[in-house]
Amino acid sequence: MIGRLFKKVEKLGPICVGLDTDVSYIPGYIKNRNSKLSDILLDFNKTIINSTYDLVPAYKLQIAYYESYGIEGLIAYIETLKYIKSKGCITIGDIKRGDISTSAQKYAEAHFEGEFEADILTLNPYMGYETLDPFIKYLDKGKGIFVLLRTSNPGSKDIQYQTIEKSNKYLYYEVGDRLQEIGKKYRNNNVNYSNLGLVVGATSREDGKEIRERYKDMFFLIPGYGYQGGTGEDIKLYLNSGNGGIVNSSRGIMLNYKNYADGEDRFSFYTRDAVKKMKGDILGE
Amino acid sequence: MIGRLFKKVEKLGPICVGLDTDVSYIPGYIKNRNSKLSDILLDFNKTIINSTYDLVPAYKLQIAYYESYGIEGLIAYIETLKYIKSKGCITIGDIKRGDISTSAQKYAEAHFEGEFEADILTLNPYMGYETLDPFIKYLDKGKGIFVLLRTSNPGSKDIQYQTIEKSNKYLYYEVGDRLQEIGKKYRNNNVNYSNLGLVVGATSREDGKEIRERYKDMFFLIPGYGYQGGTGEDIKLYLNSGNGGIVNSSRGIMLNYKNYADGEDRFSFYTRDAVKKMKGDILGE
Repeated sequence: MIGRLFKKVEKLGPICVGLDTDVSYIPGYIKNRNSKLSDILLDFNKTIINSTYDLVPAYKLQIAYYESYGIEGLIAYIETLKYIKSKGCITIGDIKRGDISTSAQKYAEAHFEGEFEADILTLNPYMGYETLDPFIKYLDKGKGIFVLLRTSNPGSKDIQYQTIEKSNKYLYYEVGDRLQEIGKKYRNNNVNYSNLGLVVGATSREDGKEIRERYKDMFFLIPGYGYQGGTGEDIKLYLNSGNGGIVNSSRGIMLNYKNYADGEDRFSFYTRDAVKKMKGDILGE
Repeated sequence: MIGRLFKKVEKLGPICVGLDTDVSYIPGYIKNRNSKLSDILLDFNKTIINSTYDLVPAYKLQIAYYESYGIEGLIAYIETLKYIKSKGCITIGDIKRGDISTSAQKYAEAHFEGEFEADILTLNPYMGYETLDPFIKYLDKGKGIFVLLRTSNPGSKDIQYQTIEKSNKYLYYEVGDRLQEIGKKYRNNNVNYSNLGLVVGATSREDGKEIRERYKDMFFLIPGYGYQGGTGEDIKLYLNSGNGGIVNSSRGIMLNYKNYADGEDRFSFYTRDAVKKMKGDILGE
């Protein structure tokens, strides 16, 4: 998977469109032309995908949004993943699951094989590295995982930034060093990155350079661009010459049309335009 | 919620039946009398609930199992929660979600209001205490949360048992102390427990007494009994005279029937019997 992602980023830039779809984001005309909620959500997502799939390597779906709409929401989640695949793009299921033993196994089956199948999943390591094993088994079968390393919300300081006594380093480095070790076995030597990647929030610059150098052969999923406060300059620190990471923007892309008087009429245009501008900002073009 | 749970435990004992339903657990006759997968899962769960609802305060559903069966699985999850409520028992959604900002908000809406509504949810604190806020808002509205404190899988040592430099204590105490502080605002003074509780694995005895004393006014969800290795003696350390916690067993109850030649014929009896024996073991009756 990481080889495919690397090559797509090389060609198209490190951009990921986040489809964190809330009903309040959806233009009236899309609501009016559908009756079922799942169709409304899917129609909106498809319109965004149709406007952008030639521009971006991947789409990320934050499953919390779909869960909040119950079964109808999850039907839209499933159908959106299928549609993205049909366009040849990579799907990232932002599920942040983390559980032990058979429960972890069930989550892996659900999201790497079952109806919710995605190419790459985000995971939470809090219950220990062994909880990643059921997912790691899929890394040799074309799948990828991004494990939470260091986020950039205010609460990230509460646990991730605690200094560990035995090593005198932040917990997130403790976690990252261990994940790097585990990830070595799943390294793709053609592109020099592991299929085990990291989620690294990019709204803070202070340790960007250190994280990037320390985890040279780990691919980063970088949330936080745009609405969450990250700028193009912040982001560059987390990339290796424009690769080695993929930057997600959700509301900055999905809601761009709301900045314009003719936004609904030209929804596809403004969505595509937001992606192009984001790419320009990050790559400095 | 915690008042209701406390009173039920006082009356019935600290027993929670875990409905972590795998198709391979289900007796042939239940499979044969249904055609849809959601009906098979639901019929099995209902049979267990019918055999035990007068004996136990609560049921816990590990959502990973249901997710692994896709939409059909989640329909069974929803219908099982409804059925438990109709019997007057408490529902625990074992979802272990943890995410930031609007995503956390969406998870809270999904599992405290939406189709997946449960009375109590399990949560993962790794991204910081602020990520609990959208759930905490529901504590005054009759809901409860159990936040992961210390699990007892081998990997729990990886992160939870790291010693924090500034306080010279394990990370899980760091987390627990802070959660206790937050939980004070949500204390039910009639029963002397907070609506913010903790998940504490019970297969390890070493720190059981310390955890129990340190977090006197926090209610514990205690997994790990039976199949995961915890014994009645281990469990007692985590309770306050038989209350202050609820002990979950899933496979020990659901699969008890498989120990007997006439297991399928007397599935309800063996299920009920497993609950009674567990109660005897834990309460020393």
